[in-house]
Amino acid sequence: VNADALPRIAIDAMGGDHAPIEIVAGTILANRDGLGRMTLVGDRNRIEPLLVGPGSQDIEIVHTDEIVAMDAHASYAVRNADGTSLGEAVERVRSGAADACVSAGNSGAFLAIALIRLGRVAGIARPAIAAVIPGVRGPVVLLDAGANVDCRPEWLVQFALMGSAYARAALGVAEPRVGIISVGEERSKGNSQSIAAAELLDLAPVRFIGNVEGKDLFADHADVVVTDGFIGNVMLKLAEGAGSYFRSSLRETIEGGSLLEKLGALLLRPAFTKLQKKLSYDTYGGAPLLGLRGNCIVAHGRSNRTAIRNAIAAAAAEARADLIAEIAASVERVPA
Amino acid sequence: VNADALPRIAIDAMGGDHAPIEIVAGTILANRDGLGRMTLVGDRNRIEPLLVGPGSQDIEIVHTDEIVAMDAHASYAVRNADGTSLGEAVERVRSGAADACVSAGNSGAFLAIALIRLGRVAGIARPAIAAVIPGVRGPVVLLDAGANVDCRPEWLVQFALMGSAYARAALGVAEPRVGIISVGEERSKGNSQSIAAAELLDLAPVRFIGNVEGKDLFADHADVVVTDGFIGNVMLKLAEGAGSYFRSSLRETIEGGSLLEKLGALLLRPAFTKLQKKLSYDTYGGAPLLGLRGNCIVAHGRSNRTAIRNAIAAAAAEARADLIAEIAASVERVPA
Repeated sequence: VNADALPRIAIDAMGGDHAPIEIVAGTILANRDGLGRMTLVGDRNRIEPLLVGPGSQDIEIVHTDEIVAMDAHASYAVRNADGTSLGEAVERVRSGAADACVSAGNSGAFLAIALIRLGRVAGIARPAIAAVIPGVRGPVVLLDAGANVDCRPEWLVQFALMGSAYARAALGVAEPRVGIISVGEERSKGNSQSIAAAELLDLAPVRFIGNVEGKDLFADHADVVVTDGFIGNVMLKLAEGAGSYFRSSLRETIEGGSLLEKLGALLLRPAFTKLQKKLSYDTYGGAPLLGLRGNCIVAHGRSNRTAIRNAIAAAAAEARADLIAEIAASVERVPA
Repeated sequence: VNADALPRIAIDAMGGDHAPIEIVAGTILANRDGLGRMTLVGDRNRIEPLLVGPGSQDIEIVHTDEIVAMDAHASYAVRNADGTSLGEAVERVRSGAADACVSAGNSGAFLAIALIRLGRVAGIARPAIAAVIPGVRGPVVLLDAGANVDCRPEWLVQFALMGSAYARAALGVAEPRVGIISVGEERSKGNSQSIAAAELLDLAPVRFIGNVEGKDLFADHADVVVTDGFIGNVMLKLAEGAGSYFRSSLRETIEGGSLLEKLGALLLRPAFTKLQKKLSYDTYGGAPLLGLRGNCIVAHGRSNRTAIRNAIAAAAAEARADLIAEIAASVERVPA
């Protein structure tokens, strides 16, 4: 990527619960904000009518006829990627026509197609999905968030390298603190995987701060939190579930409450809205796939236009910062 | 236990952040409510002055001079258990002088001492800690919550048996639904451990409903949720952390808000208090150690008198229901 030129972003217009309307709208927002040169990949007949209003000029359309179904198996999706909006968005990154791609579609298919088409960075055994979580003082990168359910300790070290590179390149954290998920702060606490990985992390070219517990995830202890993809996925979904449980319990309590309590809730509505925005995953827009030879951002299936705009911003930041070169360079600094 | 007689409960008066004051106060509450015959184990000189007011009559004191330190290593605590309040509380269960014991002290030491003194139920490979979580429609039993960081699939099946027995005996759930933590609802989703355990659970004498995800923990999908002790501990602490993060973020938003928002918060205070009570771990009081030949309840280190009262209630319910016989019987029904 030429740092002076705007990064070129390929967006899967047909993937996600609210495609193509919210995908196109988010792309227009990103274009208006000058985040890059946008290419929407998908059904021209459905996209073109949506490309109206300020910010919609100069957005390119690459037509495709096919769609990867949300419930398609990864292996089926890989064999049938040609001519799909997701497959062609990834293909543009492979061919060099785009510097990054974004999809809110089938994430398992996205990972599989990207792995086959783009390949891995030398020295990275397994690509990982990184979730960017709204913490108390800023974003926290949690990885692996679900790509690898059974992991070797050395893969967790690679996750730490990739997460650190992402935090530096895309989130502007100068020296990201790396923690490993465990069941206590003391170094002796953990399971066989976490203890072995912690020993390797001591020698790795990252700022390793040791164990972090579940309660520390949001608490500004670490900027990058590593664990295997099974635990990371369970944690991510638990955090989502806990948030909506708290909100629905509060709503239920208010509905069963006095008139004064209901008035209180009305007065507090702006604060609730502000809070929901702060804690929303939309803020960081998407989950980067790390370790591939191409910048790919998985947006949430439920993404609205703001989430898509922010996923495109993350994709553009990755491309501008040359994240892949950064990851390749940090892999080379790992002692053999 | 004779069902007509009140269960005899031994309480470690010296364990916990607020010992002995809150421990004694909680014991008085439990005694006033007729939950059993109470024995406080600890320093008579510190306990006796606290045994005043309604409900304090007929509470027995067993004097001990020593205390297990909160940071004592388990192996040290086991070697030096004699004469400590925790060690003697467990010893009363072993000797038959008590039907159950409760401690808010060093939980690792409690587990280790109980394992050595009481032994395991025949057929149970590893005792587990069960956390009782406030779910949307009632309590959810999550186990293992931290006793076993590396687990074999067949141990997870034993956790399911023990958790089901506890839900029936102590929580009054007639046919507890058992789920296993995984990364997707489909049976093909999981890591090697969860997939192998799910296959064994299909054959086990429990009401197995399949995979549950992190977001389902509170959502009334399953009454008993099994996973290994590493993941269970991470989940439990993450849920605690998410709750306090949400509360502190809401407080911060209100403090930075308008006068009307502050007024709204004031009016909503009763609702917040009610909600905090509903979501509080105090409601279920403590975490049972399951699989031992004796009823043991670990109370949270920060327990207040309500939490201690409820931990004693859980201990009494276990003893009344003859939980250990129930666990032994369900182990025998597992196909070889």
